[in-house]
Amino acid sequence: MKKFIFGIDIGGTTCKIGLFDNTGLLLQEWETPTDSGNNGINVIDNLAETLHEYLNSKGISYDAIEGIGLGIPAQVAPDGRVVISSNVGWQDHYVGRELSVKMNGIPVKVIKDSNAAALGEMWKGKAKGYRNVSLITIGTGVGGANIVNGELVIGSKGAGGDFGHLTIYPQETEQCGCGRKGCLEQYASATAIVKQYKAELPSVEEAKGRLETTVILPSVEAIETTEIKTLTAKDIFEAYVAGEKVATKVINKFAKSLAQGMTAVACTTDPEIFLIGGGVSKAGQPLLDIVTKYYQELALGDTKHTKIELTELGNQSGIYGAAKLVLC
Amino acid sequence: MKKFIFGIDIGGTTCKIGLFDNTGLLLQEWETPTDSGNNGINVIDNLAETLHEYLNSKGISYDAIEGIGLGIPAQVAPDGRVVISSNVGWQDHYVGRELSVKMNGIPVKVIKDSNAAALGEMWKGKAKGYRNVSLITIGTGVGGANIVNGELVIGSKGAGGDFGHLTIYPQETEQCGCGRKGCLEQYASATAIVKQYKAELPSVEEAKGRLETTVILPSVEAIETTEIKTLTAKDIFEAYVAGEKVATKVINKFAKSLAQGMTAVACTTDPEIFLIGGGVSKAGQPLLDIVTKYYQELALGDTKHTKIELTELGNQSGIYGAAKLVLC
Repeated sequence: MKKFIFGIDIGGTTCKIGLFDNTGLLLQEWETPTDSGNNGINVIDNLAETLHEYLNSKGISYDAIEGIGLGIPAQVAPDGRVVISSNVGWQDHYVGRELSVKMNGIPVKVIKDSNAAALGEMWKGKAKGYRNVSLITIGTGVGGANIVNGELVIGSKGAGGDFGHLTIYPQETEQCGCGRKGCLEQYASATAIVKQYKAELPSVEEAKGRLETTVILPSVEAIETTEIKTLTAKDIFEAYVAGEKVATKVINKFAKSLAQGMTAVACTTDPEIFLIGGGVSKAGQPLLDIVTKYYQELALGDTKHTKIELTELGNQSGIYGAAKLVLC
Repeated sequence: MKKFIFGIDIGGTTCKIGLFDNTGLLLQEWETPTDSGNNGINVIDNLAETLHEYLNSKGISYDAIEGIGLGIPAQVAPDGRVVISSNVGWQDHYVGRELSVKMNGIPVKVIKDSNAAALGEMWKGKAKGYRNVSLITIGTGVGGANIVNGELVIGSKGAGGDFGHLTIYPQETEQCGCGRKGCLEQYASATAIVKQYKAELPSVEEAKGRLETTVILPSVEAIETTEIKTLTAKDIFEAYVAGEKVATKVINKFAKSLAQGMTAVACTTDPEIFLIGGGVSKAGQPLLDIVTKYYQELALGDTKHTKIELTELGNQSGIYGAAKLVLC
């Protein structure tokens, strides 16, 4: 085992980079912007550039790097092919090979970002000591990862842990981004929370009356302008905690949908623990409480007692997991 | 490795017993009735009796038996505890230990029947050569099994592969046997097919008119008597193949529900192959065709191309899998 490992987490807006030693200690961490132009080729070029600069500035030899783990926001086929990554612009790319060539042949292992996050949480976070873990990440979309008998479930087409596309309401008439109807992502993403809240606002006047008594927006004036577009899932969660009626309705639907998706996972791989991560998980205990309540109502038999926790490493879970992939 | 292994499959009406040699060759096979009286204790006593008799009559020493694999129609916790088996009468029983004591200490391994069937199919049947397999068994109820990265997914509470309790229609008002509402088993079991068909028959007269032109019952007179109660899923499948209208409606709903459940599995463990087994799978190619059609309509992205096949070993898959459990 060589001395260092890079763990990288590519997001839609930034790439997080961590340098680890071969015991798994995080030595340094930095970010670069994600430039998704040029069909994602810029992302690879920019990553290679920042890594070259870093190694040169620190006087670290390429031979001292065991490998690079790369978590990316996309389905990754078992052979490392990135099937499609709309955020970054890749389609049918062997991203790992391309980065390896630009990094003087340092081996690169590629993994779906939520799979990296699950490995990270199992290694250094909330899932330490478990061998059967299901992670659900709630951000702009809904992602996930499954660890069974201590191993990641990549799946035959790279769709293992794609919990955002579990069908929750088959009678849905609107389309999900994937082209199907009734997916969990349509009810349980940050985007969905905001969309459903807006759909419940019949007029600016009514909304104004409703919001005056709550914490939902910085000022009532905001809803009379285009600023209502800046409403976030966080605002709506805060309004729910403060008891606002519409937010309560929306967050209940969110939590019930998420819990229903979790019951499907329980009937399939029956994990020891569910972890909830991603941006929306910052809502903390109120999120955990309402999801747990619905899960216990809806789940089958003994699986009602499956643990549900929030992730521990926050946005560092991806770089930890990517590094772990190389250390394995 | 000793010379022989017993593979046993306990069903609601009969117990199938197979004697295998240590290369996995099935040497002899027989059945005994399942007597579920006395909270299932009779099942163990009767099994022990038939095994003792067999060994004595053949002059086989107890020392020549490597072990007994026991597939049972129940959730089995990872420690071998049978959580509940309504068919056989067990609740919180360590059935393996009990049989072992009665069999002079021969080791007994216990497994859910559908898990045994999946192991059997992977060993000697349609799933040979695959490492990621989801089996769905359709009989009186709907069961299942999941093999991921070559290993069975037992689950933390023994609920791995409990596909019959995936929620398909959350708006359902009727209860499933498990106490929840909208489970796959409510639409995709043999029981459900018959129930839904009967519910579509508004009166004996109308039913009579409708059935005269079909193959659905041995005689039209039958529907004027209590014999209509003997209607089976097989009859309804035959009527569907013959083009009868109500059967077509019922079988389409069955197939669509089953396919929807399969899409949930595809988003969770993304198997290489789905196998459909159990009594209803005897319907053969027409069943496979209609399920495949709906699955390809409903599944996510590349998972549309996942193989779907019928099981190969029929009702022997359980004894093969139970024996394999000992051989592993």
